[in-house]
Amino acid sequence: MSEACDLEALSSRLRAFAEEREWERFHSPKNLCMALIKEAAELLEHFQWLTEQQSRALDEQVLGEVSLEMADVLIYLVRLADVLGVDLMAAASEKLAINARKYPAERVRGSARKYDQY
Amino acid sequence: MSEACDLEALSSRLRAFAEEREWERFHSPKNLCMALIKEAAELLEHFQWLTEQQSRALDEQVLGEVSLEMADVLIYLVRLADVLGVDLMAAASEKLAINARKYPAERVRGSARKYDQY
Amino acid sequence: MSEACDLEALSSRLRAFAEEREWERFHSPKNLCMALIKEAAELLEHFQWLTEQQSRALDEQVLGEVSLEMADVLIYLVRLADVLGVDLMAAASEKLAINARKYPAERVRGSARKYDQY
Amino acid sequence: MSEACDLEALSSRLRAFAEEREWERFHSPKNLCMALIKEAAELLEHFQWLTEQQSRALDEQVLGEVSLEMADVLIYLVRLADVLGVDLMAAASEKLAINARKYPAERVRGSARKYDQY
Repeated sequence: MSEACDLEALSSRLRAFAEEREWERFHSPKNLCMALIKEAAELLEHFQWLTEQQSRALDEQVLGEVSLEMADVLIYLVRLADVLGVDLMAAASEKLAINARKYPAERVRGSARKYDQY
Repeated sequence: MSEACDLEALSSRLRAFAEEREWERFHSPKNLCMALIKEAAELLEHFQWLTEQQSRALDEQVLGEVSLEMADVLIYLVRLADVLGVDLMAAASEKLAINARKYPAERVRGSARKYDQY
Repeated sequence: MSEACDLEALSSRLRAFAEEREWERFHSPKNLCMALIKEAAELLEHFQWLTEQQSRALDEQVLGEVSLEMADVLIYLVRLADVLGVDLMAAASEKLAINARKYPAERVRGSARKYDQY
Repeated sequence: MSEACDLEALSSRLRAFAEEREWERFHSPKNLCMALIKEAAELLEHFQWLTEQQSRALDEQVLGEVSLEMADVLIYLVRLADVLGVDLMAAASEKLAINARKYPAERVRGSARKYDQY
Protein backbone atom coordinates (compact mmCIF):
# COMPACT_ATOMS: atom_id res chain seq x y z
CA MET A 1 0.00 0.00 0.00
CA SER A 2 1.16 3.49 -0.83
CA GLU A 3 0.76 6.76 0.98
CA ALA A 4 -2.88 6.48 -0.02
CA CYS A 5 -3.02 4.14 2.95
CA ASP A 6 -4.30 6.90 5.11
CA LEU A 7 -7.72 7.05 6.65
CA GLU A 8 -7.32 10.79 7.13
CA ALA A 9 -6.75 11.32 3.43
CA LEU A 10 -9.75 9.15 2.61
CA SER A 11 -11.83 11.11 5.09
CA SER A 12 -10.89 14.40 3.44
CA ARG A 13 -11.75 13.08 0.02
CA LEU A 14 -15.15 11.87 1.23
CA ARG A 15 -15.89 15.18 2.88
CA ALA A 16 -15.07 17.06 -0.31
CA PHE A 17 -17.18 14.61 -2.29
CA ALA A 18 -20.20 15.25 -0.05
CA GLU A 19 -19.68 19.02 -0.01
CA GLU A 20 -19.42 19.29 -3.77
CA ARG A 21 -22.78 17.55 -4.02
CA GLU A 22 -24.35 19.37 -1.07
CA TRP A 23 -25.12 16.06 0.56
CA GLU A 24 -24.10 17.06 4.10
CA ARG A 25 -27.71 17.43 5.19
CA PHE A 26 -28.39 13.80 4.26
CA HIS A 27 -25.30 12.68 6.12
CA SER A 28 -26.66 12.65 9.65
CA PRO A 29 -25.07 9.94 11.81
CA LYS A 30 -28.43 8.18 11.91
CA ASN A 31 -28.64 8.02 8.12
CA LEU A 32 -24.99 7.09 7.67
CA CYS A 33 -25.42 4.14 10.04
CA MET A 34 -28.30 2.93 7.93
CA ALA A 35 -26.25 3.25 4.76
CA LEU A 36 -23.36 1.44 6.43
CA ILE A 37 -25.44 -1.55 7.44
CA LYS A 38 -27.01 -1.68 4.00
CA GLU A 39 -23.54 -2.00 2.48
CA ALA A 40 -22.59 -4.63 5.05
CA ALA A 41 -25.64 -6.59 3.91
CA GLU A 42 -24.64 -6.33 0.26
CA LEU A 43 -21.27 -7.74 1.25
CA LEU A 44 -22.89 -10.54 3.22
CA GLU A 45 -25.20 -11.38 0.33
CA HIS A 46 -22.21 -12.71 -1.60
CA PHE A 47 -21.66 -15.31 1.11
CA GLN A 48 -25.13 -16.31 2.22
CA TRP A 49 -25.48 -19.48 0.17
CA LEU A 50 -21.81 -20.43 0.14
CA THR A 51 -20.28 -22.94 2.48
CA GLU A 52 -17.54 -21.59 4.69
CA GLN A 53 -15.04 -23.46 2.56
CA GLN A 54 -16.38 -21.87 -0.63
CA SER A 55 -16.21 -18.48 1.06
CA ARG A 56 -12.47 -18.99 1.48
CA ALA A 57 -11.97 -19.66 -2.22
CA LEU A 58 -13.77 -16.96 -4.18
CA ASP A 59 -13.06 -16.68 -7.86
CA GLU A 60 -11.54 -13.49 -9.22
CA GLN A 61 -14.79 -11.92 -10.37
CA VAL A 62 -16.63 -12.42 -7.10
CA LEU A 63 -13.57 -11.26 -5.18
CA GLY A 64 -13.59 -8.05 -7.21
CA GLU A 65 -17.26 -7.46 -6.40
CA VAL A 66 -16.67 -8.29 -2.75
CA SER A 67 -13.78 -5.80 -2.63
CA LEU A 68 -16.03 -3.02 -3.82
CA GLU A 69 -18.69 -3.86 -1.23
CA MET A 70 -15.99 -3.77 1.43
CA ALA A 71 -14.95 -0.39 0.07
CA ASP A 72 -18.52 0.84 0.53
CA VAL A 73 -18.50 -0.25 4.16
CA LEU A 74 -15.19 1.53 4.74
CA ILE A 75 -16.41 4.65 2.97
CA TYR A 76 -19.50 5.02 5.14
CA LEU A 77 -17.58 4.15 8.28
CA VAL A 78 -14.94 6.80 7.57
CA ARG A 79 -17.58 9.33 6.60
CA LEU A 80 -19.46 8.66 9.84
CA ALA A 81 -16.26 9.02 11.84
CA ASP A 82 -15.66 12.40 10.22
CA VAL A 83 -19.17 13.66 10.94
CA LEU A 84 -18.98 12.48 14.57
CA GLY A 85 -15.38 13.57 15.10
CA VAL A 86 -14.26 10.05 15.98
CA ASP A 87 -10.63 8.95 15.54
CA LEU A 88 -11.15 5.47 14.11
CA MET A 89 -7.61 4.20 14.57
CA ALA A 90 -7.49 5.36 18.17
CA ALA A 91 -10.84 3.69 18.81
CA ALA A 92 -9.59 0.46 17.22
CA SER A 93 -6.49 0.50 19.42
CA GLU A 94 -8.62 1.05 22.49
CA LYS A 95 -10.93 -1.79 21.50
CA LEU A 96 -8.03 -4.14 20.86
CA ALA A 97 -6.70 -3.45 24.34
CA ILE A 98 -10.14 -4.24 25.79
CA ASN A 99 -10.34 -7.46 23.78
CA ALA A 100 -6.86 -8.52 24.89
CA ARG A 101 -7.94 -8.24 28.52
CA LYS A 102 -11.28 -9.96 27.83
CA TYR A 103 -9.84 -12.90 25.92
CA PRO A 104 -6.40 -13.78 27.38
CA ALA A 105 -4.70 -16.02 24.85
CA GLU A 106 -3.64 -18.62 27.39
CA ARG A 107 -7.20 -19.07 28.52
CA VAL A 108 -9.15 -19.14 25.29
CA ARG A 109 -6.55 -20.75 23.04
CA GLY A 110 -7.75 -23.70 21.03
CA SER A 111 -11.20 -23.34 22.49
CA ALA A 112 -14.34 -22.22 20.79
CA ARG A 113 -15.91 -21.27 24.06
CA LYS A 114 -15.92 -17.59 23.25
CA TYR A 115 -17.83 -18.42 20.12
CA ASP A 116 -20.28 -20.77 21.74
CA GLN A 117 -21.35 -18.63 24.64
CA TYR A 118 -23.68 -15.77 24.11
CA MET B 1 -3.53 10.64 13.99
CA SER B 2 -0.08 9.22 14.41
CA GLU B 3 1.76 6.57 12.47
CA ALA B 4 -0.71 4.17 14.07
CA CYS B 5 -2.94 5.43 11.29
CA ASP B 6 -2.10 2.45 9.23
CA LEU B 7 -4.54 -0.20 8.18
CA GLU B 8 -1.66 -2.55 7.45
CA ALA B 9 -0.39 -2.30 11.00
CA LEU B 10 -3.89 -2.89 12.35
CA SER B 11 -4.26 -5.87 10.05
CA SER B 12 -1.05 -7.41 11.37
CA ARG B 13 -2.13 -6.91 14.96
CA LEU B 14 -5.48 -8.57 14.27
CA ARG B 15 -3.83 -11.50 12.54
CA ALA B 16 -1.52 -12.05 15.48
CA PHE B 17 -4.46 -11.74 17.86
CA ALA B 18 -6.36 -14.46 16.01
CA GLU B 19 -3.31 -16.70 15.68
CA GLU B 20 -2.45 -16.51 19.36
CA ARG B 21 -5.97 -17.69 20.14
CA GLU B 22 -6.14 -20.23 17.32
CA TRP B 23 -9.25 -18.57 16.00
CA GLU B 24 -8.31 -18.74 12.31
CA ARG B 25 -10.66 -21.65 11.68
CA PHE B 26 -13.60 -19.55 12.89
CA HIS B 27 -12.54 -16.66 10.70
CA SER B 28 -13.94 -17.82 7.40
CA PRO B 29 -15.07 -14.91 5.20
CA LYS B 30 -18.65 -16.08 5.62
CA ASN B 31 -18.41 -15.91 9.42
CA LEU B 32 -16.50 -12.63 9.44
CA CYS B 33 -19.23 -11.01 7.31
CA MET B 34 -21.80 -12.12 9.85
CA ALA B 35 -19.74 -10.70 12.70
CA LEU B 36 -19.26 -7.47 10.77
CA ILE B 37 -22.97 -6.90 10.20
CA LYS B 38 -23.68 -7.76 13.83
CA GLU B 39 -21.32 -4.98 14.89
CA ALA B 40 -22.89 -2.59 12.37
CA ALA B 41 -26.24 -3.35 14.00
CA GLU B 42 -24.89 -2.62 17.48
CA LEU B 43 -23.70 0.72 16.13
CA LEU B 44 -27.07 1.42 14.55
CA GLU B 45 -28.89 0.51 17.75
CA HIS B 46 -27.53 3.67 19.35
CA PHE B 47 -29.36 5.74 16.74
CA GLN B 48 -32.61 3.90 16.16
CA TRP B 49 -34.86 5.98 18.39
CA LEU B 50 -32.99 9.27 18.00
CA THR B 51 -34.04 11.99 15.63
CA GLU B 52 -31.47 12.89 13.00
CA GLN B 53 -30.80 16.09 14.89
CA GLN B 54 -30.19 14.20 18.13
CA SER B 55 -27.87 11.86 16.27
CA ARG B 56 -25.70 14.85 15.38
CA ALA B 57 -25.37 15.89 19.02
CA LEU B 58 -24.41 12.82 21.04
CA ASP B 59 -23.23 13.35 24.59
CA GLU B 60 -19.73 12.28 25.55
CA GLN B 61 -20.71 8.93 27.03
CA VAL B 62 -22.74 7.79 24.07
CA LEU B 63 -20.07 9.03 21.69
CA GLY B 64 -17.53 6.90 23.52
CA GLU B 65 -19.75 3.83 23.17
CA VAL B 66 -20.40 4.62 19.53
CA SER B 67 -16.66 4.94 18.90
CA LEU B 68 -16.07 1.44 20.22
CA GLU B 69 -18.84 0.01 18.05
CA MET B 70 -17.26 1.72 15.05
CA ALA B 71 -13.95 0.18 16.08
CA ASP B 72 -15.58 -3.26 16.02
CA VAL B 73 -16.83 -2.68 12.48
CA LEU B 74 -13.36 -1.59 11.38
CA ILE B 75 -11.73 -4.54 13.12
CA TYR B 76 -13.88 -7.13 11.36
CA LEU B 77 -13.59 -5.32 8.04
CA VAL B 78 -9.80 -5.23 8.24
CA ARG B 79 -9.66 -8.84 9.41
CA LEU B 80 -11.87 -9.90 6.49
CA ALA B 81 -9.68 -7.98 4.07
CA ASP B 82 -6.64 -9.80 5.41
CA VAL B 83 -8.24 -13.24 5.08
CA LEU B 84 -9.43 -12.47 1.54
CA GLY B 85 -6.25 -10.70 0.47
CA VAL B 86 -8.10 -7.48 -0.34
CA ASP B 87 -6.34 -4.10 -0.31
CA LEU B 88 -8.98 -1.97 1.37
CA MET B 89 -7.53 1.43 0.51
CA ALA B 90 -7.10 0.50 -3.13
CA ALA B 91 -10.67 -0.75 -3.24
CA ALA B 92 -11.91 2.47 -1.64
CA SER B 93 -10.04 4.55 -4.23
CA GLU B 94 -11.51 2.46 -7.03
CA LYS B 95 -14.99 2.84 -5.59
CA LEU B 96 -14.59 6.60 -5.21
CA ALA B 97 -13.65 6.87 -8.86
CA ILE B 98 -16.76 4.89 -9.80
CA ASN B 99 -18.94 7.10 -7.62
CA ALA B 100 -17.44 10.26 -9.12
CA ARG B 101 -18.48 9.08 -12.59
CA LYS B 102 -21.89 7.93 -11.37
CA TYR B 103 -22.77 11.13 -9.52
CA PRO B 104 -21.23 14.13 -11.35
CA ALA B 105 -21.37 17.04 -8.93
CA GLU B 106 -22.83 19.46 -11.45
CA ARG B 107 -25.74 17.15 -12.08
CA VAL B 108 -26.69 15.99 -8.62
CA ARG B 109 -25.78 19.08 -6.62
CA GLY B 110 -28.47 20.38 -4.31
CA SER B 111 -30.75 17.58 -5.33
CA ALA B 112 -31.87 14.61 -3.33
CA ARG B 113 -32.68 12.66 -6.43
CA LYS B 114 -29.93 10.18 -5.86
CA TYR B 115 -31.41 9.49 -2.47
CA ASP B 116 -34.98 9.20 -3.64
CA GLN B 117 -34.46 6.83 -6.52
CA TYR B 118 -33.72 3.23 -5.90
CA MET C 1 -57.43 -10.66 5.54
CA SER C 2 -58.80 -13.98 4.45
CA GLU C 3 -58.11 -17.49 5.63
CA ALA C 4 -54.78 -17.04 3.89
CA CYS C 5 -53.92 -15.16 7.04
CA ASP C 6 -52.25 -18.19 8.42
CA LEU C 7 -48.60 -18.52 9.12
CA GLU C 8 -48.93 -22.30 9.10
CA ALA C 9 -50.32 -22.27 5.57
CA LEU C 10 -47.53 -19.94 4.46
CA SER C 11 -44.98 -22.22 6.10
CA SER C 12 -46.31 -25.24 4.19
CA ARG C 13 -46.19 -23.37 0.90
CA LEU C 14 -42.61 -22.32 1.53
CA ARG C 15 -41.56 -25.84 2.45
CA ALA C 16 -43.10 -27.20 -0.75
CA PHE C 17 -41.43 -24.42 -2.73
CA ALA C 18 -38.02 -25.36 -1.34
CA GLU C 19 -38.57 -29.09 -1.77
CA GLU C 20 -39.65 -28.77 -5.40
CA ARG C 21 -36.40 -26.96 -6.08
CA GLU C 22 -34.25 -29.18 -3.87
CA TRP C 23 -33.09 -26.16 -1.94
CA GLU C 24 -33.32 -27.73 1.53
CA ARG C 25 -29.59 -28.23 1.74
CA PHE C 26 -29.05 -24.47 1.26
CA HIS C 27 -31.63 -23.70 3.91
CA SER C 28 -29.54 -24.22 7.02
CA PRO C 29 -30.59 -21.90 9.86
CA LYS C 30 -27.25 -20.12 9.52
CA ASN C 31 -27.87 -19.37 5.85
CA LEU C 32 -31.52 -18.44 6.34
CA CYS C 33 -30.53 -15.89 9.00
CA MET C 34 -28.15 -14.32 6.53
CA ALA C 35 -30.85 -14.18 3.87
CA LEU C 36 -33.27 -12.69 6.39
CA ILE C 37 -30.97 -9.85 7.39
CA LYS C 38 -30.19 -9.17 3.74
CA GLU C 39 -33.89 -8.67 3.08
CA ALA C 40 -34.22 -6.49 6.18
CA ALA C 41 -31.45 -4.34 4.73
CA GLU C 42 -33.22 -4.03 1.38
CA LEU C 43 -36.27 -2.85 3.30
CA LEU C 44 -34.21 -0.37 5.29
CA GLU C 45 -32.58 0.96 2.13
CA HIS C 46 -35.88 2.53 1.13
CA PHE C 47 -35.79 4.66 4.26
CA GLN C 48 -32.15 5.53 4.73
CA TRP C 49 -32.19 8.98 3.19
CA LEU C 50 -35.76 9.88 4.09
CA THR C 51 -36.72 11.98 7.08
CA GLU C 52 -38.93 10.23 9.61
CA GLN C 53 -41.80 12.37 8.37
CA GLN C 54 -41.21 11.33 4.77
CA SER C 55 -41.06 7.71 5.88
CA ARG C 56 -44.62 8.07 7.18
CA ALA C 57 -45.89 9.31 3.82
CA LEU C 58 -44.61 6.99 1.12
CA ASP C 59 -46.10 7.28 -2.32
CA GLU C 60 -47.93 4.31 -3.79
CA GLN C 61 -45.06 2.99 -5.85
CA VAL C 62 -42.54 3.01 -3.04
CA LEU C 63 -45.11 1.50 -0.69
CA GLY C 64 -45.60 -1.35 -3.14
CA GLU C 65 -41.86 -1.98 -3.26
CA VAL C 66 -41.63 -1.76 0.50
CA SER C 67 -44.45 -4.29 0.86
CA LEU C 68 -42.55 -6.81 -1.21
CA GLU C 69 -39.40 -6.32 0.85
CA MET C 70 -41.44 -6.89 3.98
CA ALA C 71 -42.83 -10.03 2.37
CA ASP C 72 -39.27 -11.27 1.85
CA VAL C 73 -38.48 -10.75 5.51
CA LEU C 74 -41.62 -12.65 6.52
CA ILE C 75 -40.87 -15.44 4.05
CA TYR C 76 -37.38 -16.09 5.41
CA LEU C 77 -38.56 -15.75 9.00
CA VAL C 78 -41.35 -18.31 8.48
CA ARG C 79 -39.01 -20.60 6.59
CA LEU C 80 -36.46 -20.42 9.38
CA ALA C 81 -39.16 -21.15 11.96
CA ASP C 82 -40.16 -24.24 9.99
CA VAL C 83 -36.59 -25.53 9.73
CA LEU C 84 -35.97 -24.94 13.45
CA GLY C 85 -39.38 -26.17 14.57
CA VAL C 86 -40.24 -22.84 16.21
CA ASP C 87 -43.85 -21.74 16.74
CA LEU C 88 -43.60 -18.08 15.80
CA MET C 89 -46.92 -16.95 17.21
CA ALA C 90 -46.28 -18.67 20.54
CA ALA C 91 -42.84 -17.06 20.68
CA ALA C 92 -44.35 -13.64 19.91
CA SER C 93 -46.89 -14.06 22.71
CA GLU C 94 -44.15 -15.06 25.13
CA LYS C 95 -42.06 -12.07 24.11
CA LEU C 96 -44.99 -9.70 24.49
CA ALA C 97 -45.54 -10.94 28.02
CA ILE C 98 -41.88 -10.33 28.80
CA ASN C 99 -42.05 -6.83 27.32
CA ALA C 100 -45.19 -6.02 29.32
CA ARG C 101 -43.33 -6.85 32.55
CA LYS C 102 -40.23 -5.00 31.42
CA TYR C 103 -41.98 -1.81 30.36
CA PRO C 104 -44.98 -1.21 32.66
CA ALA C 105 -47.17 1.36 30.93
CA GLU C 106 -47.60 3.52 34.00
CA ARG C 107 -43.86 3.83 34.40
CA VAL C 108 -42.66 4.45 30.87
CA ARG C 109 -45.65 6.34 29.50
CA GLY C 110 -44.85 9.59 27.78
CA SER C 111 -41.18 9.06 28.36
CA ALA C 112 -38.49 8.28 25.90
CA ARG C 113 -36.31 6.87 28.59
CA LYS C 114 -36.52 3.35 27.26
CA TYR C 115 -35.32 4.67 23.96
CA ASP C 116 -32.53 6.77 25.33
CA GLN C 117 -30.90 4.20 27.56
CA TYR C 118 -28.77 1.52 26.08
CA MET D 1 -51.20 -23.23 16.68
CA SER D 2 -54.41 -21.87 18.06
CA GLU D 3 -56.60 -19.01 16.97
CA ALA D 4 -53.81 -16.84 18.30
CA CYS D 5 -52.23 -17.69 14.98
CA ASP D 6 -53.43 -14.46 13.56
CA LEU D 7 -51.23 -11.65 12.42
CA GLU D 8 -54.16 -9.25 12.71
CA ALA D 9 -54.62 -10.08 16.37
CA LEU D 10 -50.91 -9.65 17.00
CA SER D 11 -51.00 -6.35 15.16
CA SER D 12 -53.82 -5.08 17.38
CA ARG D 13 -52.00 -6.12 20.52
CA LEU D 14 -48.84 -4.32 19.39
CA ARG D 15 -50.76 -1.19 18.54
CA ALA D 16 -52.38 -1.15 21.97
CA PHE D 17 -49.00 -1.78 23.56
CA ALA D 18 -47.50 1.23 21.80
CA GLU D 19 -50.50 3.46 22.49
CA GLU D 20 -50.56 2.67 26.21
CA ARG D 21 -46.94 3.76 26.38
CA GLU D 22 -47.33 6.73 24.02
CA TRP D 23 -44.60 5.34 21.81
CA GLU D 24 -46.31 6.08 18.49
CA ARG D 25 -44.12 9.08 17.84
CA PHE D 26 -41.02 6.86 18.04
CA HIS D 27 -42.58 4.32 15.70
CA SER D 28 -41.90 6.02 12.39
CA PRO D 29 -41.34 3.50 9.58
CA LYS D 30 -37.74 4.66 9.40
CA ASN D 31 -37.15 3.89 13.07
CA LEU D 32 -39.06 0.61 12.99
CA CYS D 33 -36.90 -0.62 10.10
CA MET D 34 -33.82 0.13 12.15
CA ALA D 35 -35.23 -1.76 15.13
CA LEU D 36 -36.16 -4.66 12.87
CA ILE D 37 -32.68 -5.04 11.41
CA LYS D 38 -31.19 -4.77 14.90
CA GLU D 39 -33.31 -7.73 16.00
CA ALA D 40 -32.38 -9.65 12.85
CA ALA D 41 -28.73 -9.11 13.82
CA GLU D 42 -29.31 -10.39 17.34
CA LEU D 43 -30.81 -13.49 15.78
CA LEU D 44 -27.88 -13.87 13.41
CA GLU D 45 -25.41 -13.45 16.25
CA HIS D 46 -26.43 -16.86 17.58
CA PHE D 47 -25.24 -18.45 14.35
CA GLN D 48 -22.17 -16.47 13.37
CA TRP D 49 -19.53 -18.85 14.71
CA LEU D 50 -21.48 -22.07 14.22
CA THR D 51 -21.02 -24.36 11.28
CA GLU D 52 -24.12 -24.88 9.17
CA GLN D 53 -24.41 -28.34 10.63
CA GLN D 54 -24.28 -27.00 14.18
CA SER D 55 -26.91 -24.44 13.26
CA ARG D 56 -29.27 -27.30 12.40
CA ALA D 57 -28.82 -28.89 15.83
CA LEU D 58 -29.25 -26.20 18.47
CA ASP D 59 -29.63 -27.30 22.06
CA GLU D 60 -32.83 -26.44 23.91
CA GLN D 61 -31.52 -23.35 25.65
CA VAL D 62 -30.14 -21.73 22.53
CA LEU D 63 -33.29 -22.63 20.62
CA GLY D 64 -35.33 -20.86 23.27
CA GLU D 65 -33.20 -17.74 22.94
CA VAL D 66 -33.36 -17.93 19.16
CA SER D 67 -37.16 -18.21 19.31
CA LEU D 68 -37.39 -14.98 21.26
CA GLU D 69 -35.13 -13.18 18.79
CA MET D 70 -37.35 -14.42 15.97
CA ALA D 71 -40.34 -13.12 17.92
CA ASP D 72 -38.70 -9.69 18.05
CA VAL D 73 -38.26 -9.69 14.29
CA LEU D 74 -41.90 -10.64 13.81
CA ILE D 75 -43.07 -8.03 16.30
CA TYR D 76 -41.31 -5.17 14.54
CA LEU D 77 -42.34 -6.43 11.12
CA VAL D 78 -46.00 -6.61 12.13
CA ARG D 79 -45.81 -3.22 13.85
CA LEU D 80 -44.27 -1.70 10.72
CA ALA D 81 -46.98 -3.26 8.56
CA ASP D 82 -49.62 -1.70 10.79
CA VAL D 83 -48.05 1.76 10.67
CA LEU D 84 -47.68 1.59 6.88
CA GLY D 85 -51.07 -0.05 6.27
CA VAL D 86 -49.48 -3.06 4.57
CA ASP D 87 -51.25 -6.44 4.44
CA LEU D 88 -48.33 -8.77 5.16
CA MET D 89 -50.00 -12.01 4.11
CA ALA D 90 -51.22 -10.53 0.84
CA ALA D 91 -47.73 -9.22 0.17
CA ALA D 92 -46.22 -12.63 0.93
CA SER D 93 -48.62 -14.30 -1.49
CA GLU D 94 -47.76 -11.77 -4.18
CA LYS D 95 -44.05 -12.33 -3.60
CA LEU D 96 -44.44 -16.10 -3.73
CA ALA D 97 -46.16 -15.81 -7.11
CA ILE D 98 -43.30 -13.65 -8.37
CA ASN D 99 -40.74 -16.15 -7.08
CA ALA D 100 -42.56 -19.06 -8.70
CA ARG D 101 -42.28 -17.33 -12.08
CA LYS D 102 -38.68 -16.32 -11.47
CA TYR D 103 -37.48 -19.76 -10.37
CA PRO D 104 -39.42 -22.44 -12.27
CA ALA D 105 -38.85 -25.72 -10.44
CA GLU D 106 -37.98 -27.67 -13.56
CA ARG D 107 -35.24 -25.23 -14.42
CA VAL D 108 -33.55 -24.61 -11.11
CA ARG D 109 -34.04 -28.00 -9.48
CA GLY D 110 -30.95 -29.56 -7.99
CA SER D 111 -28.88 -26.61 -9.05
CA ALA D 112 -27.27 -23.98 -6.90
CA ARG D 113 -27.10 -21.57 -9.78
CA LYS D 114 -29.65 -19.25 -8.27
CA TYR D 115 -27.48 -19.09 -5.19
CA ASP D 116 -24.26 -18.49 -7.03
CA GLN D 117 -25.37 -15.73 -9.33
CA TYR D 118 -26.03 -12.29 -8.03
